[in-house]
Amino acid sequence: MAPRSVLTPQETDFPQWYQDVLAKAELAENGPVRGTIVIRPYGYAIWEHMQAEMDRRIKALGVANAYFPLFIPESFFQKEAEHVEGFSPELAVVTYGGGKKLEEPVVVRPTSETVINSYFAKWIQSHRDLPMLLNQWANVVRWELRPRLFLRGTEFLWQEGHTAHATEADARAFALRVLDEVYRDFMVEVMAVPVLTGRKTARERFAGAETTWTCEGMMRDGKALQMGTSHELGQNFARAFDISFLDESGGQSYAWQTSWGASTRLMGALVMAHGDDAGLRLPPRLAPVQVVVLVARAEEGVAEQAAALASALAAAGVRVEVDGRPDVSFGRRVVDRELKGVPVRLEVGPRDLAKGEVVLVRRQRGSKEAVPLAGVVPAVQEALDETQTAMLEEATALRTGATSDVSTVEEAIEACAEGFARLPLPALGLDGEDRANAAGVSVRCLLGADGGPPSPTASDDDLVAVLGRAY
Amino acid sequence: MAPRSVLTPQETDFPQWYQDVLAKAELAENGPVRGTIVIRPYGYAIWEHMQAEMDRRIKALGVANAYFPLFIPESFFQKEAEHVEGFSPELAVVTYGGGKKLEEPVVVRPTSETVINSYFAKWIQSHRDLPMLLNQWANVVRWELRPRLFLRGTEFLWQEGHTAHATEADARAFALRVLDEVYRDFMVEVMAVPVLTGRKTARERFAGAETTWTCEGMMRDGKALQMGTSHELGQNFARAFDISFLDESGGQSYAWQTSWGASTRLMGALVMAHGDDAGLRLPPRLAPVQVVVLVARAEEGVAEQAAALASALAAAGVRVEVDGRPDVSFGRRVVDRELKGVPVRLEVGPRDLAKGEVVLVRRQRGSKEAVPLAGVVPAVQEALDETQTAMLEEATALRTGATSDVSTVEEAIEACAEGFARLPLPALGLDGEDRANAAGVSVRCLLGADGGPPSPTASDDDLVAVLGRAY
Repeated sequence: MAPRSVLTPQETDFPQWYQDVLAKAELAENGPVRGTIVIRPYGYAIWEHMQAEMDRRIKALGVANAYFPLFIPESFFQKEAEHVEGFSPELAVVTYGGGKKLEEPVVVRPTSETVINSYFAKWIQSHRDLPMLLNQWANVVRWELRPRLFLRGTEFLWQEGHTAHATEADARAFALRVLDEVYRDFMVEVMAVPVLTGRKTARERFAGAETTWTCEGMMRDGKALQMGTSHELGQNFARAFDISFLDESGGQSYAWQTSWGASTRLMGALVMAHGDDAGLRLPPRLAPVQVVVLVARAEEGVAEQAAALASALAAAGVRVEVDGRPDVSFGRRVVDRELKGVPVRLEVGPRDLAKGEVVLVRRQRGSKEAVPLAGVVPAVQEALDETQTAMLEEATALRTGATSDVSTVEEAIEACAEGFARLPLPALGLDGEDRANAAGVSVRCLLGADGGPPSPTASDDDLVAVLGRAY
Repeated sequence: MAPRSVLTPQETDFPQWYQDVLAKAELAENGPVRGTIVIRPYGYAIWEHMQAEMDRRIKALGVANAYFPLFIPESFFQKEAEHVEGFSPELAVVTYGGGKKLEEPVVVRPTSETVINSYFAKWIQSHRDLPMLLNQWANVVRWELRPRLFLRGTEFLWQEGHTAHATEADARAFALRVLDEVYRDFMVEVMAVPVLTGRKTARERFAGAETTWTCEGMMRDGKALQMGTSHELGQNFARAFDISFLDESGGQSYAWQTSWGASTRLMGALVMAHGDDAGLRLPPRLAPVQVVVLVARAEEGVAEQAAALASALAAAGVRVEVDGRPDVSFGRRVVDRELKGVPVRLEVGPRDLAKGEVVLVRRQRGSKEAVPLAGVVPAVQEALDETQTAMLEEATALRTGATSDVSTVEEAIEACAEGFARLPLPALGLDGEDRANAAGVSVRCLLGADGGPPSPTASDDDLVAVLGRAY
């Protein structure tokens, strides 16, 4: 097949490749205000599938969605001092409303932590009100000086979960269930990104959290992307906002809390974890169009046969589209659908039809096979299933190949030029994180001996630090 | 049954009843910034069902969702002068970002009309790009001096559709399809609110539209609520934003556009169209919980039987919950579920179980019936179906009973103390709308002879003006 000149090759300039893909696959573009994003229909359709998949998992944990206001009084940002320091330079502030200067300026939410906690204080009175498990899908604003589409923006879309529990153990268990049953499961099984799930170091954790759990994915340039976090907040916010309850023994206790979030940044992760020089490659479970039926030449009966195949596939529950645009050449339509990462392409032309066949092309590995007309539906279903699995395997192999076991910080820094470095935590030493940071490398997470999140009782000596260069 | 003292009766003070229901049914409360709203989980779950039902209908018309930024440069509001005048005093303006005063202030979107049209200008080049059919689900901000929860707020959630077409006829047909196939169908078949669909007068139409189509519902106090609008914009925005395309004959033409929206105001409509002195009444198609199984007394086997019934109902696709809270009396649980408008209640107690029965209570009409255990699933399904139908019939009868045919403006004003007045358009005369407005009555919509939206070719002489007092 002819080389694609549509995109800058990944090898040449990965960030430019990323920009090119977002534009050419019509995922997103810059908004008129610096740092803002326009998510185009194709990109938004992928996000809708992500939302639906995460939302189902969130609700399966007994969490209910709610909605809290965009505007927060400025005074709320003085309740939790540690929290303020983390956000203050990022705030967008409304000072005029209704044509007049406001008496108290209002902040456009950078998160809803403060406002949700002020309602928790009101709603939680007794142990019978616990656990309180809420989630919100919303836009948030953090003024961003070096924006990159989907990865860092002044405005982004996300979900933020906030929960309150009667005991520390309940809160910890819940934070870990979110990490595993919502984020890890979604990212691995649906996005086909083999994330590492581990604990953040004190330096990397969310201001105000006791423990931050994270999902770290490797992009195809070997860099790390933090894809979702789940925080144990201890009683920090409960004390600041007076979230206390009558406990079973008749005393007053502060609640134990968690918060957790994932955002449209996942769109960036999806692009960078799977895309190649021909464009996006979408895992079938997230693809708005799983199969495109391309009419190779609009001769007698070909379009009809394409439509019949599409109907049969749709009836089998496959998301399918026919592309028979007469004003766009077959070659351009192929390039366009490859750019857009459609997992399976069926090419329907008069010559193959005469043999009772169509050509099935898998985007993931670029393979072509002739399929008899009568066998198209099962062949497509098999190709979709295998693509989903193969994408995860390919991404896992990439990560494994680009991960080095090292024994010193200096070796880790060197290894991170290619990907991740795994360093026993004791070898990080007291100032190892400083030295790594100075070299543009950070500790992405700490893992237990089994490669998963460390158990609370694990000794530091048994932990492994994963280092990488991060987005 | 004992009288309910939980809510102010509708007869006594309808607006206070409305406030009481929102609070006691845990739908919503005020946010910390005046005019903002906190949508609580029960309210948000209803809104999620509304969104899903509307979204499905919107997508069935071939419309794709997208997302445009919250922040809009102030300069955009000077492009379409007529439009600015409509909104200027409602704008919230961000003047600080990242700790510094901004060089150009940014406006928090009151709608995305301007920003979407600026992208349409870029994306639409040829007749092959048309029709372009986009929708956005988002929050918008309009500074509101007299806020009322769900009905008028500084921030609300909505969908706004924006489309561009090659011809005026296409745009008109699309605006009417949205009115009928999205809004009317959803409101009537799902919300069980028998909306009138008609045309706005010149005075009531959206600034910048050529024609505004509207859905008008009657609330239980006889007042009108505008529940959704669909606008034919002509080429007004296309000229202002230079949305032009190469047409099939090789010339340049301006696109013909529509826009249309419905918001969380529908939550207010749902409450006020159906609620009674015991609380909400939810149509089954929108009820987060369609059936509650109440454990009357926690004796041997009762809770188990309740759980078994709930499983059987869930397996049949019914949204069901068991309420066996031991610390809340049976009576209070009944009141709570009536407040929340749960359509069907199954009371499971030892005495009825001994007879092989449970009691089925329909919230809509308050009727009780004994149902044999083996027949519970079909009896519940029948009760849900009949409730959906009965709610629409009841609301239709209410509207019919509170609508008067009149022949003068003065009669219309008098009749509007009770509900709607239908006045032949010629009888409205030149200053009739002024006189009605001065008396607190407005023309809600104009209907054709068949009671539906007037055809474009209908003579004014054949139209009927529907007048009412509006929320």
